[in-house]
Parts: sequence; structure tokens; C-alpha cells
Amino acid sequence: MAITPFERRTRDAQAALADAEADALVCFPSRNLFYLSGFDEAPGERHLFYLVPADGDPVFLVPDLYETQVRSASWVDEVRTWADDADPVAATADALDAMDLPSAPHVLVDDTMWARFTHDLRAVLPEATFGLASDVVAPLRVRKDDAELDALRRAGVAADEAVDAVRELGADAVGMTETELAARIETYLAEAGGAGVSFETIVGSGPNGAMPHHHHGDREITAGDPVVLDFGTRVDGYPSDQTRTLVFDGDPGERFREVHEVVREAQAAAVDAVEPGVTAASVDRAAREVIDEAGYGDAFVHRTGHGVGLDVHEDPYIVAGNDTELELGMVFSVEPGVYLDGEFGVRIEDLVVVTENGRERLNDTDRGWEC
Amino acid sequence: MAITPFERRTRDAQAALADAEADALVCFPSRNLFYLSGFDEAPGERHLFYLVPADGDPVFLVPDLYETQVRSASWVDEVRTWADDADPVAATADALDAMDLPSAPHVLVDDTMWARFTHDLRAVLPEATFGLASDVVAPLRVRKDDAELDALRRAGVAADEAVDAVRELGADAVGMTETELAARIETYLAEAGGAGVSFETIVGSGPNGAMPHHHHGDREITAGDPVVLDFGTRVDGYPSDQTRTLVFDGDPGERFREVHEVVREAQAAAVDAVEPGVTAASVDRAAREVIDEAGYGDAFVHRTGHGVGLDVHEDPYIVAGNDTELELGMVFSVEPGVYLDGEFGVRIEDLVVVTENGRERLNDTDRGWEC
Repeated sequence: MAITPFERRTRDAQAALADAEADALVCFPSRNLFYLSGFDEAPGERHLFYLVPADGDPVFLVPDLYETQVRSASWVDEVRTWADDADPVAATADALDAMDLPSAPHVLVDDTMWARFTHDLRAVLPEATFGLASDVVAPLRVRKDDAELDALRRAGVAADEAVDAVRELGADAVGMTETELAARIETYLAEAGGAGVSFETIVGSGPNGAMPHHHHGDREITAGDPVVLDFGTRVDGYPSDQTRTLVFDGDPGERFREVHEVVREAQAAAVDAVEPGVTAASVDRAAREVIDEAGYGDAFVHRTGHGVGLDVHEDPYIVAGNDTELELGMVFSVEPGVYLDGEFGVRIEDLVVVTENGRERLNDTDRGWEC
Repeated sequence: MAITPFERRTRDAQAALADAEADALVCFPSRNLFYLSGFDEAPGERHLFYLVPADGDPVFLVPDLYETQVRSASWVDEVRTWADDADPVAATADALDAMDLPSAPHVLVDDTMWARFTHDLRAVLPEATFGLASDVVAPLRVRKDDAELDALRRAGVAADEAVDAVRELGADAVGMTETELAARIETYLAEAGGAGVSFETIVGSGPNGAMPHHHHGDREITAGDPVVLDFGTRVDGYPSDQTRTLVFDGDPGERFREVHEVVREAQAAAVDAVEPGVTAASVDRAAREVIDEAGYGDAFVHRTGHGVGLDVHEDPYIVAGNDTELELGMVFSVEPGVYLDGEFGVRIEDLVVVTENGRERLNDTDRGWEC
């Protein structure tokens, strides 16, 4: 039988554990868990671990009500269970005992593992030292393989179709609340074949657009309002993430036109700077220089981008100080923005993949503000 | 100016910290953070902490792009920020330094805090000992106040309206996939005034119903299929959580009828057992005895229920061994189930609140299987 992608990834992780002189990796419900095992589940209060020793076969420890599901979703043969009325900490200790780790093992845990579980692992492995799983798993996940890129491209197409549909609303969007427009975007994403949203949809109208992480609220969109729209959906588990700043009707004013043009130039400059071998920081700098020169440097309050894969935010981060050199298959957002408190915000975002020729955009819609 | 509920809760938490001989509480984006501060945000990779000393005033440490949002959402005056290109670990160290904690403080962290953040806290507080925030916050959150109960009741009404609409589908549901029916349920929940879903909607048809945490898939519902429906929505931040097992058309067979009746009696027995002063375990036992006596004890593979509040799963857990005595204002699910591998599952769930007279159900729809 051919090895599954999940088994191949676990074997790669085991080799990386050995290289890092770590004895074991412990995942709980996380993207790493799906990436390595094929089992997809949200974090919850029950003890559910995927235990991967540097040597030997991995083991699932799950509440017994999950056994059927784990066996059907995953390639892993050894599934240990504990009953709902049993002590999960004792079950964890038993499972770790059976792995024959060194007496003072070095154990990497999922970066997103909840404190309640890391506390229990520390209690049952009092001599252990602990590190983070990303040290060995992130370098595997950062370069996307063909199947991953295919899913990311299709998620990008779904986002493109949604924003085209939003643009067609034109003056019909005036009078809608931000929340109503967010629901409309999510309907368009679903109609384009996406599953759910990659993150809570952002519709920031007028002054709300100046808060980069405002989601959406009861404010009604009026003519002349700049509206920041940041949204995405998932296809085969992989997300899209796109931002456009639109004006649905009316005149947004001279200052907005100027700022929008600055952000658009900054975004284009950063995308053009992407190629194998340059640093993540240099892409950030390319965007920042355009905005600094236009006099809005203080209003560009966040990094230029973030890696995108199973997590919507992952390596590589496109930020000053990140000397990571871009490699083939890396995927990240390029999303400079300018935020004028009490007035409006402008952000433009596309995902790009690093290719031999430089970069490929995963989004291909108009970046202007007019509908 | 009157004290806000959030400030009152933080002050209560500070008193509880002192009682527990802990020096500080550190929240990151979590339900505790919303409960104590009024600021609602999803966990992310950026360092965002709410630092609550046992003595003195609490402090927010946030990325600077969150400052406006945090100040508008929260009652807290001291908001420290760090810039996107700064070192968040150094900023964390500075903020903790400024709090004048003892040299070897005992620090409680959010139970759901990600390992990447607990690792950083351990690095900047090398002499500290760590515990979990739930030790002091869970006892505050477990008894709901009137405003919380009002929100929970309204969320329950939204779930009731949705399940009534699903029942009306009758034979029209035959031929729908589980995923289509899940989308239909979510539409009904939104039409009933709910915001989003409390958790991923479960539609488990036929043998899929025997996997208690199966979500939904491409399987088409056929006549005679028992279908487990488990769903909820949020109102003012508080969730509903209801399960019904329905047959949309056709004859489910004698064995299903028998099992459904057993589960229904078990659920009624457990609800009737709820009153102030009895233990959580005794409510679990009331359901389990009915199912054991009918010979299906091995097929009831999970606990009888879980507390419900800002978290869909929180204290008190209705499980064997939990000697917690029920108190006025506690809210939890009562949801026994029987799962026959490869055949079908049956689960019936309502939320109840402990009252002076015993209990009040937060759901009030038919618990039978016929549509």
C-alpha cells in the first residue's frame, strides 16, 4: 500500500526531531495534528494527544468516544483510549511510559496547546524539558507541495468570485449595515464553493476602517464611505485571505484618493520584491518605503504580511527583522495599510506564492476602490 | 460613575487571587478575558495579555494596532502597547516588571493559553511557579447572574425555533445530505436571532449517528434513518446547545424505538434529579441507571453533561466522580446517549439551570423522534 501524505509528513517530522535532539513531539487538536495524522478536530477540554517519538511508531491517545473517528480519519495503527469516567492524566502517563522515552526527555509540544494540557504533561514528565513543535514542524509546513498549492489556488478563486460579486452591488450596498454586508460576502464565498470562512469577515466602514481588527457592526454604509473588506474561505482545508477597500457610491474625497493610491503602489512594490532568496524583511521594507515617502509611515501600524497555509497566520511573517530567505513554495499575504484614526482605513491584500520566476499572485481581481 | 460588571468581576477575581495565595492572573484572548475585561478577541499569534495582580490595578499589554479597540471595549485604564516590529517578549517582561510582583511569584494563566505564550512567561519569570486561572475564575463564572441567564434563555428560544422548523421539513429532508441539513439548521438559527453557531453543527444520519462527535458529511438522509441533530447559536455572547434525534420519514425499526425510549427516560430521570445541594455525579448516575437497566450501559460512552456559559463546555461537568454540589444559577446540559456501532445513535439534550424549586429547562421542544 502506498504511504499516505500524512504518514510521509510524520516520518519527516521524526527525522527532524532526531536532528533537533528532541525525543518526542506531542500534538493536541491543532493544524499540526491534521497535517501529520489526517485527523481534524477543534481544541476542546478533553485530553487528546498525538504522541510522536523520534524513534518508533506514533500513538494516538483519545477519549474512547473518538476511537472510531480517529481510526477512520488517520493512518495511525496504535490508538489508545480512555473512558469518560477515567483519569486522563493517568492515561497520559501510561501512554508516555509505554514509549520508553529517556528519563529526562526533551519534548516539543504544539505551540497552540492549552496550558491545562502542558501543565499535565509537566506533571507526568517532571524531569522533562519542553520546547515548541514549530521548531520542527514549521519548516516542513512552510513550503507547500503541489496538492496544497492547488487547494490554495482554488480558495483564491472563490475569494475573487466573492469580491467581484460585492463590487457589482455598487450603490445597492449603501444603507446596508456592516454585519449585513459581511453576511452577503459569506454567502458569495459559499456560492463560489468555499467551506466556511478562514477568519471572521471584516467590514470596516468609514472610521471603523481605521481599526485594523474591527470585525463588523451595526454601522450603516453611507455614500462616500471607504469600506475595508477582508475575508476568505477554505477549500480542501486551505484558506484564502484577500482585502479590498471599496467605495460603493459617492465621492470619498481627495485625501482618501491619495491614500488609496499610496497603499496600492506600496502593495505592488512589495509584490514585485518577492523572489526566491530575498528576505521576508526586504518585502516588508519595499511596502514601507513607499508609505514612508508619502508621509504616512506612522499610520502603517502593522507588518506587511503573514504566511498562509493550514493556519491563516503562520510562517513566514513579512516583517522588519525577519531575515528568513524566501523559498520556492512559500505562500504569504502582502497587505500594507494606512489607518487614519477617526477618518478611514485603506488596506489592499493578495496572497502570493514564491516561484522560480519570482512570484505568482493567488488573487486576480481589480485593486481599485471604484465599484 | 457606576462600576461595570466587568470591573466588578475583576475585583472579585483579585480577592480570589489573594485567597488562593496567588500573586497574579494572566489572561490572553479567551472567555476569561471577555468575562473580566469586556474585550472580546480570538486567540492569535500576537502577544496580548490582561495582567491582573492580586493587589493594584490591572494592565493590558497589546499590540499597538489593538489600542483603540481595547480602550473602547474595556473599562481598564492602563493599556501598554508594543509595535509590530518590536520584541513582544521584552514588552511582556517590562509590563511584568512594572507590576512589582514578588521575586518568586505564583502566577495563574488562562487554561487555554497557548504553549508559545506560557513558554515566554516562564522565560521572563524564571523563578515563578504557575497554576491555572480556572482555580479562581471558574468559581466566579459557574453561577450565572440575571443578565447571563437572560441571554442563555434567549439563546435557548432560538434553538427551539430552529428545531421546530427542522421538524416541519418532514419527508422533505429525505435526500438532503447531512451538510445540506446542517446549513439549513444554521439558517434557521440565524433567522431566530442567533449570532453564528455555538459549535460545529452535528448532523449524524444512520450509522454516522453512532459516532458521537461526527460533524456532518456527504451522506444522504434516507427514509427510516435516525438522525442525531446537535446544534446551538449565541445570543449576547451566550450559547444554546440542544440535541434531538429525529426520523424524517419511514420506519426506523423496533430496536431504534426501544433505544430512543430508553434515552428519553434516562434524560427525564436526570433532569428530575437536578436540585440545589445534590452532586453532579448523582445527576449522571440518574441517567446511567436507566440505560444500564435496559442493557445498553456499554453503549453510553460519554458523560451525561457539561456546564454551559461563555464556554460551551465549562464547569460543572456532569460525570461520575464529580462531587461538586449543584448551586443556584449553575447551567449545564443533560444529554445521555446510546451509540450502536454501524447502526445508529440516539442522544437527547436540553440545558437546565438550577433553581430554588429544582431546575428550569432552557429548551422546551418535543423530545420525540417523529416529525
